[in-house]
Amino acid sequence: MEFSSKLIEKAVNEMSQLPGIGKRTALRLVLHLLKQPKEQTRFLSQALLNMREDIKFCESCHNISDTRVCEICANLARNHQTICIVEDVRDVMAIENTGQYKGIYHVLGGKISPIEGVGPSQLNITTLVEKVKSGKVVEIIFALSSTMEGDTTNFYIYKQIADSGIIISTIARGISVGDELEYADEVTLGRSILNRVPFEKTFKNN
Amino acid sequence: MEFSSKLIEKAVNEMSQLPGIGKRTALRLVLHLLKQPKEQTRFLSQALLNMREDIKFCESCHNISDTRVCEICANLARNHQTICIVEDVRDVMAIENTGQYKGIYHVLGGKISPIEGVGPSQLNITTLVEKVKSGKVVEIIFALSSTMEGDTTNFYIYKQIADSGIIISTIARGISVGDELEYADEVTLGRSILNRVPFEKTFKNN
Ligand SMILES: [Zn+2]
Ligand SMILES: [Zn+2]
Repeated sequence: MEFSSKLIEKAVNEMSQLPGIGKRTALRLVLHLLKQPKEQTRFLSQALLNMREDIKFCESCHNISDTRVCEICANLARNHQTICIVEDVRDVMAIENTGQYKGIYHVLGGKISPIEGVGPSQLNITTLVEKVKSGKVVEIIFALSSTMEGDTTNFYIYKQIADSGIIISTIARGISVGDELEYADEVTLGRSILNRVPFEKTFKNN
Repeated sequence: MEFSSKLIEKAVNEMSQLPGIGKRTALRLVLHLLKQPKEQTRFLSQALLNMREDIKFCESCHNISDTRVCEICANLARNHQTICIVEDVRDVMAIENTGQYKGIYHVLGGKISPIEGVGPSQLNITTLVEKVKSGKVVEIIFALSSTMEGDTTNFYIYKQIADSGIIISTIARGISVGDELEYADEVTLGRSILNRVPFEKTFKNN
């Protein structure tokens, strides 16, 4: 792409560093900003800068937080003996959204992935193992995505806490509520048969 | 969406003001920036700010330019008697990319669109009419998209320059080179038959 302006070229180049944003899309976004009042670009730039410079992570669960300890960890009404292990803040948001979970979280910050060069030392695993060894934890729930990386990460952590005597569970996989069986993938359908639950359990939450 | 941090929330809200970027995508982009070195966010913010604050438009053709007069208008090797009318800088880039056009441009900055509240006074039409009336223009080529807004804009301009005696043309519409006839839409196919060209003309450029 040949640009008639270095300023546009730089903005497009920086914008297209973002995942899923190609040069064409970046140009469209940049030209959109040019048509809007200058304030919009100022607000956007400032919000991104503030976020990146001042973001904090909860000292206890590593979730993104504006305070030293996040609201969930600081909430004494929640069950601090049950810890749900997730990859990032989006998973916390998704589970919180269900309104079904009353325990706390531990945010790993990623999954073990040799391909992307992410090893266990880059994830928040040590602090989790320490928590378990402190003796205050009753149950750990794995809620990573069921990919090879997720399974590897689960197993890596499992090995380090297996002899602690706590309950170690994983979220149920199965056919999505409302989904037709015929459209489900084989693996999910297979797991949902193997992990079938007592029928009475299905009306508990309704 | 409930965020555990106001900083994230603000960044996501500003990001999702951009066209085609929903809250979920914005969150994905913002979390990506959090995983990258701080420099990336600084460069992005600065590039957007510089672009928005310092961008200039060519005094002659209104194309985006870092100089008072753009490179195309300043190029005396180009034919200044032929003016191609386009909507925005992307169209200039697309036509320049073909290497087929040696005239200059006039960038309107949009199309007349009652639905989006864009009237003729918000577009660079007056300066175009003045150019035509100056007597130095030999041909005007309309190259707006062939939508109702494009046609309306073409016609609005046409009415003001029709009696000037210059050549007024519009880019050819037709089946894309390499496309199968059966997949072309009816309107395009219809126009391409009505506007058929002498067969010898088709090997001129090859
Ligand atoms: Zn926390
Ligand atoms: Zn110019």
